[in-house]
Amino acid sequence: MLARLPERVRIYEVGPRDGLQNEKAFVRTEDKIRLIEALASAGVAKVEITSFVNPRWIPALADADRVAAGLSGYPGYAERFTALCPNMLGLDRVAHTELREVAVFMSASESHNLRNINKSRDETYPKFEPVFQACADRGIRVRAYVSVVWGCPYEGEVDPAEAVDVAARLLAMGAYEVSLGDTIGVGTPLQTRRIIDAMAAKIPLEKLAMHMHDTRGTALANCLVGLEHGITTFDASVAGLGGCPYAPGASGNLATEDLVYMLNAMGVDTGVDLEKLVAAGALAQELLGRTLPGRALQALAAANH
Amino acid sequence: MLARLPERVRIYEVGPRDGLQNEKAFVRTEDKIRLIEALASAGVAKVEITSFVNPRWIPALADADRVAAGLSGYPGYAERFTALCPNMLGLDRVAHTELREVAVFMSASESHNLRNINKSRDETYPKFEPVFQACADRGIRVRAYVSVVWGCPYEGEVDPAEAVDVAARLLAMGAYEVSLGDTIGVGTPLQTRRIIDAMAAKIPLEKLAMHMHDTRGTALANCLVGLEHGITTFDASVAGLGGCPYAPGASGNLATEDLVYMLNAMGVDTGVDLEKLVAAGALAQELLGRTLPGRALQALAAANH
Repeated sequence: MLARLPERVRIYEVGPRDGLQNEKAFVRTEDKIRLIEALASAGVAKVEITSFVNPRWIPALADADRVAAGLSGYPGYAERFTALCPNMLGLDRVAHTELREVAVFMSASESHNLRNINKSRDETYPKFEPVFQACADRGIRVRAYVSVVWGCPYEGEVDPAEAVDVAARLLAMGAYEVSLGDTIGVGTPLQTRRIIDAMAAKIPLEKLAMHMHDTRGTALANCLVGLEHGITTFDASVAGLGGCPYAPGASGNLATEDLVYMLNAMGVDTGVDLEKLVAAGALAQELLGRTLPGRALQALAAANH
Repeated sequence: MLARLPERVRIYEVGPRDGLQNEKAFVRTEDKIRLIEALASAGVAKVEITSFVNPRWIPALADADRVAAGLSGYPGYAERFTALCPNMLGLDRVAHTELREVAVFMSASESHNLRNINKSRDETYPKFEPVFQACADRGIRVRAYVSVVWGCPYEGEVDPAEAVDVAARLLAMGAYEVSLGDTIGVGTPLQTRRIIDAMAAKIPLEKLAMHMHDTRGTALANCLVGLEHGITTFDASVAGLGGCPYAPGASGNLATEDLVYMLNAMGVDTGVDLEKLVAAGALAQELLGRTLPGRALQALAAANH
């Protein structure tokens, strides 16, 4: 075990989008920008800065256009920043920004896709086609999320073959990368191995990322299995922000600090300065006015005092 | 990876001792007993119920004798319960109980041993000799903890050879098992592999347990490496109680619910009923009047409502 850890891993930071979209309180645009800049300056490979959805669905991110504009001039903007963009309406807004990458999403399970975006999986692909086409025309890269790969709140465990099919189709449509999500945080290492084995039979592993939730404490153990199998891109959320489907105190997204702590300490190059990342996590807590679930953040922020 | 998971794992529950010893508020004796019984009825292999230290050191466990007596008559008492017992004074108190097992502790690093028990490591062994001898005479099994194996707050990383030496000597003195502790929760999977490899060269792995802290979120990833290498006994604390060396919100001990969730879901037999364990975790939170750090507990307790 651990015979083959990758030398280098890309950290894809989702907090400003996946985290803040669940917040009831509206974080001011300038504060979002401060947080995004703090994350970028810590060295994460990419930051998903917002979502170009209908503001009525997600009022917390109603300022998507202003966030994207406010970051103008940030070094490496086009390579460093990306945003969720579910449809052509969103893409028309993206056209007015300097963004050169967007992300789309669908579910591995039929029930979750239906409840989440009110379409069957087969109805979803044609809706994506103009988005992929327009992105190709405009030189915009598309990343695709596949949700509930490790388990669905409506169907329970999901057959890896279903997730493989969705991932392969999204890649065939033009996605440069597919991020596999454990949306409800039920994944175990053995299951992760089965999912990656099923994926590897059809998809080059360098096209895959893992997006784990730490709801039951298993996120890093699952990432470790991914690392061993050659996954080199991992999503995480500053301070563990977001994705709390349960009681107060329950955790959702894997905290970026926990992931970077583990990788850096094992000599895997993430490009991230952990101290600066912890400062970004502390800023997230300050902006939201509460202790967030990230573990390394609490330990390391306390040690800095 | 994960080619060889063990069929069966023993869960050694430390919450009533390692958790409660850090609590400022005194939990009433009858409530401690309720918690211990809830844990035992959930099916953990063993519960460390208290510590027979000087009550002036640890007032929270000043009722050790009453806790041990109050559990009298509990089915399988002698196999199921154990207690920390650092010296002959403690052992004289244990003699008045039905306990047939005790635990002693020392540190892998010289500095931590000096600060923790005011003796060098070489001075510690002779102090243990009468304890081991008396236990052998009385048919009491001795478990030994080795602290700070993954890192020392005073020395930083600890050479695995030092931990191997301490563990081997304690086994030679008569300990039936040595529990290796990541006392400050700094361990990473790569380090765990190195430590276990070093141990395996000198010590049969079935004599070893792992006692991981989740301070930086890496506990289950570390346990996974242990499992792969043949470790089959893991310590954990109900609700993640205890071992919070840092700020409020920082976590210490690996939560038993997180460990059991992962193992049960992978088909490893723990003997533990997760639903009953979650009920015990909810009781721990009720007794202490606050949300505790365990992750699966929050997710599963919320799902039960």
